[in-house]
Amino acid sequence: MFSVKLVSYTRDGERVVAIASKMSRSRKGWSHHEETMSDEEAETWIKDAVLHGYWSPLEHSSYTFSIEGVSRVASHQLVRHRIASYTQMSHRFAKPVDEYYQPIVPPSMEKRAAELAEKGYKEAYDVYFSLLSQGVPEEDARYLLPNGVNTNVVVTMNARELYNFFSLRLCSRAQWEIRKIAWAMLDEVKKVHPRLFKYAGPSCLIHENFIREKPMTLETLGTFVSERCIEGVTRDGIVKCISNSKHF
Amino acid sequence: MFSVKLVSYTRDGERVVAIASKMSRSRKGWSHHEETMSDEEAETWIKDAVLHGYWSPLEHSSYTFSIEGVSRVASHQLVRHRIASYTQMSHRFAKPVDEYYQPIVPPSMEKRAAELAEKGYKEAYDVYFSLLSQGVPEEDARYLLPNGVNTNVVVTMNARELYNFFSLRLCSRAQWEIRKIAWAMLDEVKKVHPRLFKYAGPSCLIHENFIREKPMTLETLGTFVSERCIEGVTRDGIVKCISNSKHF
Amino acid sequence: MFSVKLVSYTRDGERVVAIASKMSRSRKGWSHHEETMSDEEAETWIKDAVLHGYWSPLEHSSYTFSIEGVSRVASHQLVRHRIASYTQMSHRFAKPVDEYYQPIVPPSMEKRAAELAEKGYKEAYDVYFSLLSQGVPEEDARYLLPNGVNTNVVVTMNARELYNFFSLRLCSRAQWEIRKIAWAMLDEVKKVHPRLFKYAGPSCLIHENFIREKPMTLETLGTFVSERCIEGVTRDGIVKCISNSKHF
Amino acid sequence: MFSVKLVSYTRDGERVVAIASKMSRSRKGWSHHEETMSDEEAETWIKDAVLHGYWSPLEHSSYTFSIEGVSRVASHQLVRHRIASYTQMSHRFAKPVDEYYQPIVPPSMEKRAAELAEKGYKEAYDVYFSLLSQGVPEEDARYLLPNGVNTNVVVTMNARELYNFFSLRLCSRAQWEIRKIAWAMLDEVKKVHPRLFKYAGPSCLIHENFIREKPMTLETLGTFVSERCIEGVTRDGIVKCISNSKHF
Repeated sequence: MFSVKLVSYTRDGERVVAIASKMSRSRKGWSHHEETMSDEEAETWIKDAVLHGYWSPLEHSSYTFSIEGVSRVASHQLVRHRIASYTQMSHRFAKPVDEYYQPIVPPSMEKRAAELAEKGYKEAYDVYFSLLSQGVPEEDARYLLPNGVNTNVVVTMNARELYNFFSLRLCSRAQWEIRKIAWAMLDEVKKVHPRLFKYAGPSCLIHENFIREKPMTLETLGTFVSERCIEGVTRDGIVKCISNSKHF
Repeated sequence: MFSVKLVSYTRDGERVVAIASKMSRSRKGWSHHEETMSDEEAETWIKDAVLHGYWSPLEHSSYTFSIEGVSRVASHQLVRHRIASYTQMSHRFAKPVDEYYQPIVPPSMEKRAAELAEKGYKEAYDVYFSLLSQGVPEEDARYLLPNGVNTNVVVTMNARELYNFFSLRLCSRAQWEIRKIAWAMLDEVKKVHPRLFKYAGPSCLIHENFIREKPMTLETLGTFVSERCIEGVTRDGIVKCISNSKHF
Repeated sequence: MFSVKLVSYTRDGERVVAIASKMSRSRKGWSHHEETMSDEEAETWIKDAVLHGYWSPLEHSSYTFSIEGVSRVASHQLVRHRIASYTQMSHRFAKPVDEYYQPIVPPSMEKRAAELAEKGYKEAYDVYFSLLSQGVPEEDARYLLPNGVNTNVVVTMNARELYNFFSLRLCSRAQWEIRKIAWAMLDEVKKVHPRLFKYAGPSCLIHENFIREKPMTLETLGTFVSERCIEGVTRDGIVKCISNSKHF
Repeated sequence: MFSVKLVSYTRDGERVVAIASKMSRSRKGWSHHEETMSDEEAETWIKDAVLHGYWSPLEHSSYTFSIEGVSRVASHQLVRHRIASYTQMSHRFAKPVDEYYQPIVPPSMEKRAAELAEKGYKEAYDVYFSLLSQGVPEEDARYLLPNGVNTNVVVTMNARELYNFFSLRLCSRAQWEIRKIAWAMLDEVKKVHPRLFKYAGPSCLIHENFIREKPMTLETLGTFVSERCIEGVTRDGIVKCISNSKHF
């Protein structure tokens, strides 16, 4: 069953990011800032960092997700993000038997070819099991398992890398499954650190906020000044495109 | 068809590593060392760096491999090495049709279950094609393709990361396919930079050379002083284990 | 004033590391393990990971330190560790005036040349101030400030990188100041996560535990089986050498 | 003496980047593309990658620089770029005596306070030497050496990281010395790989090319569509600002 859960994070991450930002401009030590910084001031330091691309203080706050019930297609794309930490269910050692074989059916198949997909997944599983029963070791038998087989991954990213991950994977050009994961991750972090992730979004929004005076958020999208986004969508289409990117 | 080819590398990599090593101990500039360093001296600086774990100068020499005809199982393991650069054939956009569908059959299957594997791969391919013909897009149809389907990856690693990669993936505990890739990569780099990769090997050998007086190479394995390797193989079994690791 | 303080960390880091380790071997999801894993089981998973060099699960737990009152010599060495996050007091923008100019006097100077050091630091400060008063901007005037001038750095490392950092910087071969920082960081993390950092130590100890049957800790050092450590200290001298490394 | 020299690089780097880009879209292997790709086609693949922010193929081409006669101020800023490899002259082990003590005098000092700077550097050197003669070890005596003392660094970055480094350090907001280094590095790589670095520039230019139809280069700067750059310079001032950034 698809599930994205924030299982651990830097509790005081927003303050940590804000204090670190301020310390680069100050001679005073951590304790001084911890005692004197108000929540409003913290928000200002965070906002300044994000909108000017001073990303490094955002690295001091980390987020661990348990991402479950996703395909090996998605996990393969996910682990390509190198500034992150992964622990992945090993198909070498953990048999996908019985109740745990729940391969992912893409929405485009559900509509058009649900039966065929089911048949394919079933056949593959039968072959896999026959191979095991003929003495082929698990780590080799899985060569016959489909890419769509479900897996679990534990992922840790810091806030800076999350901004980068979101900029790429919230975009409507990303594949539906990793896009779905990305939007679910954004929901999770916004719940606990709304100030830190206020300006997160696909790359169109990030770049737009770099080059315009008044910042926008996903909740307050207005007219873009950019002629086009990095993927080639023109000004008039961008807001619609962002809206589309939430459909999986 | 399985193939590992070194397609580009730092031509003068051995000298670059040696000169960089020496510059950390000297006030003189690059030109001076480039003009005065003999090949024997270069070899000494390299040897010292490797045997004492001063890895950083080895980062200045890079190696690009085209790894072709390997499974998605292997490529998924490969890209977990984060200090490296990858360009992977995208199954989102490149159809594995016709002549290009040549899934990998593990040796353990060839002996015991060759027909079954062939049947499984064939069925999966048929389902894949039917999905395409019913209008399912390629990026989704591939969920039904097996993990064993062949792919190509371009990989760049520097000499330090290669030492680390080899220490993990030449080991007999690694899966046969990535082990086969690792041994083939070692062959390639030893051909062009024999001095730089003289002491490369699985982690048992690397660690052994750290804690003993006289270094060994894969070609001159003798008695280990370590009680056991990091994987638990005891002293008497290590040489045999290394020898086994070359069988795929 | 020298100070190393753990200002933020992954509160449940030990459990996070243990659960992540277990998930790589299991089909079950995070909630299941979170509910069923005892503290004893957690300790076993951590111990196994560290003693076998399966470092990746340790990346899920992060630690943020405020390191204050250290020299630019030490901060320059510190930021060479690339798998970490830094926010450093900028000498471009923050003047080291008045009460904040407290340059570091190495112990070797205190004994032999305290007055000379004081004189040197005083002269440098006078030149710095004269430059400022003649209109040289701060970012340039600081070229005349000594390397020993005090600075503050905020550092975040995960537990895996800390093990690596400790292996290099607790060693008696490291310079006294970064060694002092490293031992202070170890104290801090051992207070909050004693199980996770039980086996941390200089590289001699880490390597020794890889290749021997029964593990040792800094508190239970016995006879080494290694002929020598990576730095060339022979078996009989290692325990003494570790003890020396705590003197600054 | 200030000097930035490209001492090694991936000879066929432009073709390697282009072929890797193409392989992500193709089923065919390296040899096929190497034999069939024209120089014009190579240029197109490179251009597409850069202008759409598909940076990963650019990682396959690496560049090693020997940067000599720069200050510890600059080297400290330089090594903050973590996706790169460094070998730095160690002041722990290499004495900056005699002919090698040539501290850097910032231009702002040359005009206003040349004598004072000279005096300060001279005094510091005298203290340093007295400390050595009183038995203070080199690694400690250097605490009294000024930040402006000259050093040498060997740096390796790949083309992707260079684009990022240039975007930050060619900018007029960067300090004059690292900016001077960055412009010298750009000159060096443009000589050998003009097609690969055609669109390199400060972040204003990079971002501008992402969001406009027709790309510009440093040689063909026209009117910006961005309201402002990431540092807050408004549209009308950007071209002038880029021009200023080349004055040190």
